[in-house]
Parts: sequence; C-alpha cells; structure tokens
Amino acid sequence: MKQFKRLAELYKSTLLDNVLPFWSKHSLDRQYGGYFTCLDRAGNVYDSDKFIWLQNRQVWTYSMFYNRLEKRSQWLDIARHGAEFLAKYGRDEEGNWYFALDRQGKPLVQPYNIFSDCFAAMAFSQYALASGDESAQEIALQAYNNVLRRQHNPKGKYNKAYPGTRSLKSLAIPMILANLSLEMDWLLGDSEFEAILERTVQEVMQDFRDLETGLMYENVTPEGEHLDCFDGRLINPGHGIEAMWFVMDIAHRRQDLDLINQAVDVVISTLEFGWDQEYQGIYYLMDAQGHPLQQLEWDQKLWWVHLETLVALLMGFNLTGRAECLEWFEQVHNYTWNHFSDSEYGEWFGYLNCRGELLLNLKGGKWKGCFHVPRALYLCWQQLENLDSSSE
Amino acid sequence: MKQFKRLAELYKSTLLDNVLPFWSKHSLDRQYGGYFTCLDRAGNVYDSDKFIWLQNRQVWTYSMFYNRLEKRSQWLDIARHGAEFLAKYGRDEEGNWYFALDRQGKPLVQPYNIFSDCFAAMAFSQYALASGDESAQEIALQAYNNVLRRQHNPKGKYNKAYPGTRSLKSLAIPMILANLSLEMDWLLGDSEFEAILERTVQEVMQDFRDLETGLMYENVTPEGEHLDCFDGRLINPGHGIEAMWFVMDIAHRRQDLDLINQAVDVVISTLEFGWDQEYQGIYYLMDAQGHPLQQLEWDQKLWWVHLETLVALLMGFNLTGRAECLEWFEQVHNYTWNHFSDSEYGEWFGYLNCRGELLLNLKGGKWKGCFHVPRALYLCWQQLENLDSSSE
Repeated sequence: MKQFKRLAELYKSTLLDNVLPFWSKHSLDRQYGGYFTCLDRAGNVYDSDKFIWLQNRQVWTYSMFYNRLEKRSQWLDIARHGAEFLAKYGRDEEGNWYFALDRQGKPLVQPYNIFSDCFAAMAFSQYALASGDESAQEIALQAYNNVLRRQHNPKGKYNKAYPGTRSLKSLAIPMILANLSLEMDWLLGDSEFEAILERTVQEVMQDFRDLETGLMYENVTPEGEHLDCFDGRLINPGHGIEAMWFVMDIAHRRQDLDLINQAVDVVISTLEFGWDQEYQGIYYLMDAQGHPLQQLEWDQKLWWVHLETLVALLMGFNLTGRAECLEWFEQVHNYTWNHFSDSEYGEWFGYLNCRGELLLNLKGGKWKGCFHVPRALYLCWQQLENLDSSSE
Repeated sequence: MKQFKRLAELYKSTLLDNVLPFWSKHSLDRQYGGYFTCLDRAGNVYDSDKFIWLQNRQVWTYSMFYNRLEKRSQWLDIARHGAEFLAKYGRDEEGNWYFALDRQGKPLVQPYNIFSDCFAAMAFSQYALASGDESAQEIALQAYNNVLRRQHNPKGKYNKAYPGTRSLKSLAIPMILANLSLEMDWLLGDSEFEAILERTVQEVMQDFRDLETGLMYENVTPEGEHLDCFDGRLINPGHGIEAMWFVMDIAHRRQDLDLINQAVDVVISTLEFGWDQEYQGIYYLMDAQGHPLQQLEWDQKLWWVHLETLVALLMGFNLTGRAECLEWFEQVHNYTWNHFSDSEYGEWFGYLNCRGELLLNLKGGKWKGCFHVPRALYLCWQQLENLDSSSE
C-alpha cells in the first residue's frame, strides 16, 4: 500500500510546509494583536475586521498542533498572539462573545451567535492545555457554560422566529455540543462528558437522520419529524458528512461498529445525493425534494465541504474497511486537490462556482480562516499513516 | 421611429397577455387567502409560506394597474384577495408588519424589517385609491408612520450592530422614503411631501454618490464619507440604477434638467463599472476596490437589476435624448429578453449564474413575486409610447 504512504506524505508536507507557513507569515497583526483573516491569493490583507469565529479557530489550530504534533514555540507564540487579543476584547460585560471586532478590538457586531462562544471554548481549552495558563481555563469554562445556557435559544433576543408557529431544531446545536465536549473532556467531569455525547449521538442519528433517504436533514421538528418548508427541506451535504465523522469518532471510543457503519452509510448516501454529476464536486446546499432553494449560492463548491468529506471517508475506511469509502475518497481527493489547492501562492482557495472555476480570489475572508484546511490535512494525514502502518 | 412603436407593443403585450395572466392564474390561494409566490417554472406551487414583502407588492401591482391602466374588476378582485388576508394577519398588536406568515396567516418571522411596513404602505395606499376603502387608507397611514418612526433604527431590537463603533447609513432608507412619498402624495399634505422629496434627493446625490467614480455606494458614514470595510466598499449596481430613476422621476416634476443629467451620468458610470465584459449582463454586487466580496452570489445575474436598468435608460433617454442611453438600452434589452423571459411557460426567470445560465428553475420565491417584471414592463411601455409619439 505505497499509495497510503505517498498520500500521507502529501497531506503532511502540505500542512507543515505550505498551509501553516502561509498563516504564520501573513495573518499576524503585529500592531494591534489578533489575526488578519481577509487575505487575498498572495496573502495580502484586503480587510482588517476581526471575526470572532475565525480568531478563535486560529488560536485553536495553533494550540492544537502545539499539543498534539510538536512543541514548537513559534506555534504557541502565534496562539498566544490571538488569545491575548481575544481575552482583552472578545467578550461583552456579561462574558458573551461578540461576533466581530474592528482591527483595534472595538466591538462591531453583538453576541448574537452561539458559535462565537463555542469556538471560544474550544480555542481557550486547547490554549490552556498548551500554555498552562489558568485564566485561559476560566475563559474556556465560561464560554462552555454560555453555550449550555444558550443552547435552547441560541440567538437570544436576536431570534426573529415568531414563537410557536413553526418549531424547528437545527443539526448545528447537537453537533457543537458533541464537538465541544470532545474538545473539553480534560476540563469536564467524566459523567457529564459521557452523558452529553450519548444524548448528542442519539439525537443526531434518530432525529436528524432520515431513514428513507439516508440523509441528514439540517432542520427537523423537536420530535424529529420533517416539515415541508424551505428550512425543513434543507440538506447541507458537507455539514451532514462532517457530523458523521464526529459520530464515528465517538462511536470508535465506544467500539460501536454498528454506529460506525450507520455513519458511513449516511456519508455514502449523501455523496450519491450531493455529487454534481455534470461538473463534479459536492453541492453546497440542496432541497430534499428538488425544489428551488432560497440560498443563491446553493450550487457552489466550497473548500470545507470537500475537506470534511475527505476526513469522513478516510475515517470510515480505517474503521470499517468498506470499499466505497476508498473509491469515493479517490474521487473527492482528485477533485479537491485539482481545484482548491494553490501551488503558486500556497494555502487553498475557498469558493468555486458550480463548474469549479474560481469565484473569489482569496485565501481567507469573513468565514474562511486558519481552520478547516489545516485540521483536515492533519486528520487525513493521521488516518493515512494508520492505514499505511496497518497494511504493512 | 418604428422601433419604439414595435418595442412599446412588445412590452405592453408581454405585460398584459403573458405576465399578469401568469400571476392571476397561479398565485391566488383560494383556500386561505393571500397569494402563493413560490411558483416553479410552470406556475406550480412548491412552497406555501407567505412573505409580507411579496404579498404587499402584489396588492400594489394589481391596484396600481387598476388605478392607472384600466378599471378591470378582475384586477381589483385580485388586489382585494391579498389586501383582506394582509389586513387580517399581516400585523402584530402594535401595528408593525411581520416579515413572513405561514399559509394560514400565522406569524412566522417577527417584524424586524422596515421594508415590510414600506411595502404595506404602498400597497394599501394604492388599494385604498382603487377600492375607496377607508380602512385601507388607515392601514396605509399607520404603515407610513411606522416607517417614519423606525427610519433611524430600522431593525429595532433585532439590530446586531454594536452602537457607535462603525456608523453607516444605507442607501435603502432615503430610497424607500422617496418611493413612499411619491406613492402616497394623495394621502399626505403637500408641504410634508415636498420636504421629504427634497431631503431625499439631496442625501442620495450628495452623500451616497461618489463624485470620483460616478457610482452610488450602498453604505456611507452619516456625513457621507466612505469607510474601507466590506459594507463600506459595497456597490449594488441594480440598486444604484433603480435609485437614479426615482431621482429622475422627482427631478422631472421639478423640471430640473441638471439633476436629471446627474442621474443619467450615474446610470452610465454604473453600467460601465458593472457590465460583465466576458459573459454579458450586470453583476449583482461588486466591491468598489475590486476586493473579494462577502456575498457569494455577487457575480450572478438577477432579473430585477436588468429590468430596473431598462426603466432608467428609457427614462433617461426620454428626458435628455442622450445617445448613450439608447445604446445601452439596446444592449441591456437584448440580454434581458434573451435570458430572463420564458416563451414556453410565461413570466420571467429570476436568477441566472454568471454565464447567464438558469440558476433556479422558478418564476417566484421568497424574494421574487409579482412586482419588478410587471412594473418595469409597464414603465418601459409608457416611456416607449412617449418616445414613439414625440418622434412622429
């Protein structure tokens, strides 16, 4: 299985020699702290606003590599560079995380978004582990408690839905709870941690998974039923697939092969449904019944969708050996590397149109930062190494 | 000038024999009242939610044609069909207009959007004029006062911007005030009406127009300065051009030829900036400095952008005789009719990708209803008739 070895090397070297150096070189705001994420193809800053999701995700990424890969002081320094800026400016007086700050750290957008707190908890948990900084632990736990407190009304007073007419719950909520709990198990008590994982997996696989089509729905009723409306028909293939590798990860800890196979089934069904037969690649958003979508960007090809799919397929193959996983991996790998990676300037493009042509000439923006590319390259590399060594 | 006569006939017959019949036939919800707007290519309903913008706009459209074109009882009946549903279900207890209702009229989305009130004022003003219904007048005035009251904080408590860090005002606000005042002058006192128009035109032409590029900016500081951020760099060519035909309309009442020429200058500069040289058509959204946008749909071609441009160009040519208007009209007319109109099932497609290929196979949805197509066809027809008779 020379192929696995060669691929492991490709994912590893791209991560360490290309992607991380791009962010290390271009993203640090040496004047005001924090990171620039709006970087053009070559890494030049085209906007200096600081989006809390991406600030926290970069702290997480550098801390995580410091913790899991190598104790490089440069990585810890870069994580600290963001963590100090965020600790100072990221929260309102009640400890809720803003959505965006300006370059200097002044708040631009109110804490309407629970994911800001979620990524803060992840970031400060990893950073606390890396730095040994106790105040970072406190910040992580505060953010974690914000998420628990706000999970049933994530947008708070900014929620525009009229109460009671149409109750839908979103796949995103159990996903972040699972994600967070996995990230923070070292800070949480064991029983709390296992209970949340158990509840999450049940909710995802029973309520959001549609047994007939094998697809994950983005929004269902509190009882797990479908509603025939725009939100109720929405399928987000990348999100469904990402959810499935979280589930595989949890199932693997429990050695629950049935659950792993169920998750792999969803990944394969989603790819069969979401793969663009004409131009290749995975659609961003789809309607379960094939109706027109409200999102105009539905047919675009986004980097994270493809990267998370690669992770899910390798994890699925590693844990089950099912041939479909490897066949699909080859197909998605080829599309992804041919279309998203940029051999000239490093890092990856984020947004392609339906045909796979460049839609935005950027490496980072309001939603793309230092997160999905390095995380997925790392996870794929680990899976590929494991496949290589187990095939020896 | 046989061409004007032939074109006038085309716009007229498409309006009366194709577009209005499509909505008259497919959009009425005979069971619960109001209109279906989510119609597929053939006019089949694919979603039954009722979006207040579009409900009100359809009441406006049918009432307006009844008032200005012909006293067809069918048109008044259709307007009443929507007006009664809206009067019953459209507002909260304080008289603010919801954003969306379900099919039965139960509120789905809270009144966070001032444009819902704006279109309600327009709709009920036209409907009051058509029907002589005094309660419709009251509803129109209530909605108009909502708009005036909320103009400085249009989203109210749903506003997510942190106060004070970055103050931007939006072109949309003076535009709706001008629009509303023109629509409602028969209900408002003369002095109030003229004062609002004067203030609006000044604000639009001084604060939002950029003298260097000749473009309208979507967002500027309260003092009319540019800010180098995503919102501050945003150019919405269709919106800027639509604003300019409002300004021409107002300037024409005052016989202010200088102002008319300024507005035409903006239309031409915007087309030179916003025309897609490679695939034709007008881009939806652009960055003034050419940076990547945050809106993934930026390069798409939207029906209303092209239709409002046709209105502006014909009005500009009518009022100034400038040759560029006619040259551009021919180019935009050809693109628009070749790409958006549907000779097989009637009405027009709304959303094309950058290349002019169909992006959504629909005639109506959450944002496209019975409004821009019939209004623009009507206004173009009127302008073309005027050109035809003045060239005889």
